[in-house]
Amino acid sequence: MSVAENTKLKDYCVDVAQRAKAASTELATLTGETKNYWLRRSAAQLRARANEIIEANEKDLAAAPGYGLTDAMVDRLRLDVSRIDGIAQGLEEIAMLPDPIGEVIESTVRPNGLEILKTRVPLGVVFFIYESRPNVTADAAAICVKSGNAVILRGGKEAIHSSQAIVTILAETAAECGVPAHAVQLVNTIDRAAVGQFLALNQYISVAIPRGGEGLIRRVAAEATMPVIKHFDGNCHVYIDADADLAMAEQIVLNSKCHRMGVCNAAESLLVHADVAAEALPKLGTLLRENGVEVRGDQRTCELVEGAVPASDEDYGAEFLGPVISSRVVASLDEAIEHINRYGSGHTDAIVTDSLAAARRFTQRVDSSAVMVNASTRFNDGGQFGLGAEIGISTDKFHARGPCGLKELTSYKYLVYGAGQVRQ
Amino acid sequence: MSVAENTKLKDYCVDVAQRAKAASTELATLTGETKNYWLRRSAAQLRARANEIIEANEKDLAAAPGYGLTDAMVDRLRLDVSRIDGIAQGLEEIAMLPDPIGEVIESTVRPNGLEILKTRVPLGVVFFIYESRPNVTADAAAICVKSGNAVILRGGKEAIHSSQAIVTILAETAAECGVPAHAVQLVNTIDRAAVGQFLALNQYISVAIPRGGEGLIRRVAAEATMPVIKHFDGNCHVYIDADADLAMAEQIVLNSKCHRMGVCNAAESLLVHADVAAEALPKLGTLLRENGVEVRGDQRTCELVEGAVPASDEDYGAEFLGPVISSRVVASLDEAIEHINRYGSGHTDAIVTDSLAAARRFTQRVDSSAVMVNASTRFNDGGQFGLGAEIGISTDKFHARGPCGLKELTSYKYLVYGAGQVRQ
Repeated sequence: MSVAENTKLKDYCVDVAQRAKAASTELATLTGETKNYWLRRSAAQLRARANEIIEANEKDLAAAPGYGLTDAMVDRLRLDVSRIDGIAQGLEEIAMLPDPIGEVIESTVRPNGLEILKTRVPLGVVFFIYESRPNVTADAAAICVKSGNAVILRGGKEAIHSSQAIVTILAETAAECGVPAHAVQLVNTIDRAAVGQFLALNQYISVAIPRGGEGLIRRVAAEATMPVIKHFDGNCHVYIDADADLAMAEQIVLNSKCHRMGVCNAAESLLVHADVAAEALPKLGTLLRENGVEVRGDQRTCELVEGAVPASDEDYGAEFLGPVISSRVVASLDEAIEHINRYGSGHTDAIVTDSLAAARRFTQRVDSSAVMVNASTRFNDGGQFGLGAEIGISTDKFHARGPCGLKELTSYKYLVYGAGQVRQ
Repeated sequence: MSVAENTKLKDYCVDVAQRAKAASTELATLTGETKNYWLRRSAAQLRARANEIIEANEKDLAAAPGYGLTDAMVDRLRLDVSRIDGIAQGLEEIAMLPDPIGEVIESTVRPNGLEILKTRVPLGVVFFIYESRPNVTADAAAICVKSGNAVILRGGKEAIHSSQAIVTILAETAAECGVPAHAVQLVNTIDRAAVGQFLALNQYISVAIPRGGEGLIRRVAAEATMPVIKHFDGNCHVYIDADADLAMAEQIVLNSKCHRMGVCNAAESLLVHADVAAEALPKLGTLLRENGVEVRGDQRTCELVEGAVPASDEDYGAEFLGPVISSRVVASLDEAIEHINRYGSGHTDAIVTDSLAAARRFTQRVDSSAVMVNASTRFNDGGQFGLGAEIGISTDKFHARGPCGLKELTSYKYLVYGAGQVRQ
């Protein structure tokens, strides 16, 4: 890129960020009614203008072979009337959630009569970088605006026309509804350098949220000058304790591993207590094989599971995102906990046990965003947790951990009411 | 520094950080009883071993002229039996606070019967960098350990012997009480490069908290690879509205400005509505002058305040930390809000008004960590807010905003209890 081109790109990015910042100031004091009206009206407009979206989507589909998309990826990219209706329904569902802004989170009256109210406010401007399907465009915009934030959307190049059509409708509808037109902006260039430009603008952008492959997320985390909500990967474990109900354990392992293999809360590792390994593992091995899953295990696993192959140390740290699972037989609960804290991603880990002591020790000591007792790892999800909407899952401990919904896109400020109090 | 020296320093810092990380794992599951026993026992030991501390303090006092400390600074550095008793009392007060760890912050039962518990956990390892008096050493250690975190303390070189004596007592007492000995470590070198080394170690350190001059804080914020809890400065405003009780306004302005001039929540700027300027400003000017405060104002202020000098644009952005205040007469509430959001630090800003509409608009639109209505800016403080202890004040919106006590040094994890649930 020439210096002139780089300056032009930078100017564009600064303009977008400044407009978002200005919009965020207005958004912070909008009523829930206004935001919800925009969400419902946008849903109606997406349905009414479905043809525009489908036309734009056809451009993306035509370009797909040039990007080397597989048939499955092309299918996920495709929009039709029914899928656009699904996107519209998503906006209507977010409209029905309680407004998080203005909530008094805590309050206290001090002995001197001062009233201290800790009240929820938006973060400001969200920079959302994603590689996913075009429905994410509308969903992310809705979550950000509902929580009082302006959003700068940077979607994948494969869906740029579809996303632009959706954002055009959302922005035009905003102007009609009393929502700032720049509350939702889509970055209009597929130049990768634009991401770096935005990540430098911490005077305007409050938080960056990358969603997609680990490479994208690592790049954003490394370059961002503002906080980042993220998880790199999800090497999730299911541990079958000595006191487990083995029929329950089978269902939980199968669901955690096989319900959807390509997602971050799918299980990638199986740990089995030595006392139940001989009973549990042969059957589990058969069930996994029937589901097309390869087992890579330690020596004991290989003895007990037909067709299992030896696991390397890397296998224990891997997020396969496909039909492979690592397996190890452990001598104790504590060995399982140590294994998870060493090899895991701090994402989601489950124990199957009927022992209260084991459940308590596991939940206290496993250092992950969600720790499941007798439930599938697949439940670590904003919808499943009842947050109503989710913009991502965090494996960090600062600010937000686990599924991030509306509240995780907020901050707070203290309002202090007095009657002339001064400090003694 | 030679390469060999740099390697040695780096190895030392990594050792300290690794020991802190290991200690933090143990600390996360300590009972409140154990932590409180350590706090009370440490208080007793500080009193019993006061002579050791005073001896170490004498070395710092002897070195003080070499560091160019003023008499006032030397006085703040000096420890005697009474001040050591005060430090010990501080630990006993923190022992009395409720334990934040394990608290169920929110919980829900999902339609499928899953019980979701959002429970409070420690952040991990705190790196605390400070320039203050030796009492901060004990205070910071107590707040971090009480909230389940290990702490690496990097104190000012002027107090290194005093701080070392205090930390030795805290660490030796820890070993007696079942608290990990490396829960509290003091960096044993005054080499400035050590700070940079620690700020690179985000695999061990969860958060950096700098407390001191703006230069230190900017350096830490720029170099840190982990999150930072901080405020750069405090350009705090008092706005006297058209509907203000002027007698109350005088008291609030004087207290905000003059109660302690060198602190971050002291007022640095005065804004007065034009409707009351002619009545309020001459008297306020006299009161400020009687307290030795210079007024730097706009044209209208200079007309109304005897001895006022013209303010520059820099004056409106300045944190004077001394006997100077900037002043401007504004035509409206919104002009005051705009001025504050433009020139302020997002720290603490106050309105004096009897108008409910003005108070609501001001609190909604002023984007600061604490917004005061009819109260002194000096109340933005962990103790005054009832947090019981404070490790600093944040002007960021991410994670923690305003005074940071025990809870602000925590994260959460989701515990999910099921009875074999799998996703459909």
